[in-house]
Amino acid sequence: MRSNSSVVIHPKRKRVSVCLTPSMIDLFRVEETIAVVIDVFRATSSICVAFDHGVEKIVPVESVEDCLKYREQGYLVAGERNGEMVEGFDFGNSPFSYMDEKLIRGRSIAMTTTNGTQAIHAVSNAKKVVVGSFANITVLSEWLGGQNENILLLCSGWKNRINLEDSIFAGALVKRLRHWYDLHEDTALIAETLYKSANFRKRYFMRNSSHYQRLLHLNLQKDVKYCLRKDTHPVIPVFEHGYLRNILKDQQS
Amino acid sequence: MRSNSSVVIHPKRKRVSVCLTPSMIDLFRVEETIAVVIDVFRATSSICVAFDHGVEKIVPVESVEDCLKYREQGYLVAGERNGEMVEGFDFGNSPFSYMDEKLIRGRSIAMTTTNGTQAIHAVSNAKKVVVGSFANITVLSEWLGGQNENILLLCSGWKNRINLEDSIFAGALVKRLRHWYDLHEDTALIAETLYKSANFRKRYFMRNSSHYQRLLHLNLQKDVKYCLRKDTHPVIPVFEHGYLRNILKDQQS
Repeated sequence: MRSNSSVVIHPKRKRVSVCLTPSMIDLFRVEETIAVVIDVFRATSSICVAFDHGVEKIVPVESVEDCLKYREQGYLVAGERNGEMVEGFDFGNSPFSYMDEKLIRGRSIAMTTTNGTQAIHAVSNAKKVVVGSFANITVLSEWLGGQNENILLLCSGWKNRINLEDSIFAGALVKRLRHWYDLHEDTALIAETLYKSANFRKRYFMRNSSHYQRLLHLNLQKDVKYCLRKDTHPVIPVFEHGYLRNILKDQQS
Repeated sequence: MRSNSSVVIHPKRKRVSVCLTPSMIDLFRVEETIAVVIDVFRATSSICVAFDHGVEKIVPVESVEDCLKYREQGYLVAGERNGEMVEGFDFGNSPFSYMDEKLIRGRSIAMTTTNGTQAIHAVSNAKKVVVGSFANITVLSEWLGGQNENILLLCSGWKNRINLEDSIFAGALVKRLRHWYDLHEDTALIAETLYKSANFRKRYFMRNSSHYQRLLHLNLQKDVKYCLRKDTHPVIPVFEHGYLRNILKDQQS
């Protein structure tokens, strides 16, 4: 295990790793970790919004067709392809569409997105799978800090490529998790450095991201801005038995 | 094509991409690019040293056994596995072992390393393949600037994982290539940001890298320090017909 200059060496400490895209997931021992799935623009942000507005469960599915099968069972259906809402669906991927409590409280949603839902399935053999975004960064990092398990942060990226916003968010989590964990391999340090460079000029930095440009073309500035706000929705979505639920809700009730 | 805030948009400009590890190479259209192979600690640094001391050609081979076949044809043999010289070989991977002109001028070398030679083969279908390191950064970037082809920077990494030193060097090249090229995808921006963060405290930054730690265990501080010096060996090793040669030497003679 390697030490880090700003961290006291503690040989028994667990480690945090970062996988910058699902295409590299085979290099990690997923089954020995708690995996955090990250898709800042916009899947994991929207998932946090939905749970904070009372959604009961969310089933991440791979295809539009699978979503439609769930609709027949009474589910609401949500999904985007290439940033745009699938025609005829109840929701796209905008965080604002998950704020209508009357519509969603107590309901179940089947959701498919270009990158996020695939990433959740890529780590389904982890000890636990949770969902991270700026919206839940503080409750999530504190919860992770109490787990004492190796942590793997998986960035969803864009069609198996590395993207800026997920890498930066991974770095933000690494910075917080250093309190409890050692860093494993250089990628965690790379993400953290990136976050530190980006932090105080986040939106400026994001302006250079290819996905940001893609969303601007779709007129989604408002979504982007919202997805970069911290701690707007203090939930912890955990993936178990094929669906996501908010474990903080269970603890509160 | 996406613009970058600090670059004037020029729709016909070619682009520079960064592939942070050979495990992601299938995501790139290698055949449409000039590929730059990067293995800072220490293969591509040592290759530059060797050419600057008069080596005629270097054949990158995948295995120790292949090296030995070349020895029978009069080649010198060079190689390391996990940072240590292969027993019975003429050279390991230290840049200092390639400075004895009497031994190497005019000779041919067969070389195998843990990561670097594999990376060269991974992009052998590119329009051209060249070798980059801090040792040749200025002549290389100026030469690339004159090519007007899409450029792909391939970091060798460590056993298909991303490492810090190759990512930082890729960022240093991106920063210089911006003068002639647009950035393609977020990874180029990520590498550049990393380089800018690392630049004025490079050795401090490197102290956190896992490969640096590995080399320190092998007592190779001197090598590491040398590999981080800029413009010590102004050569341009090009891979063609199965071997590397220094095209600057051809132009001078």
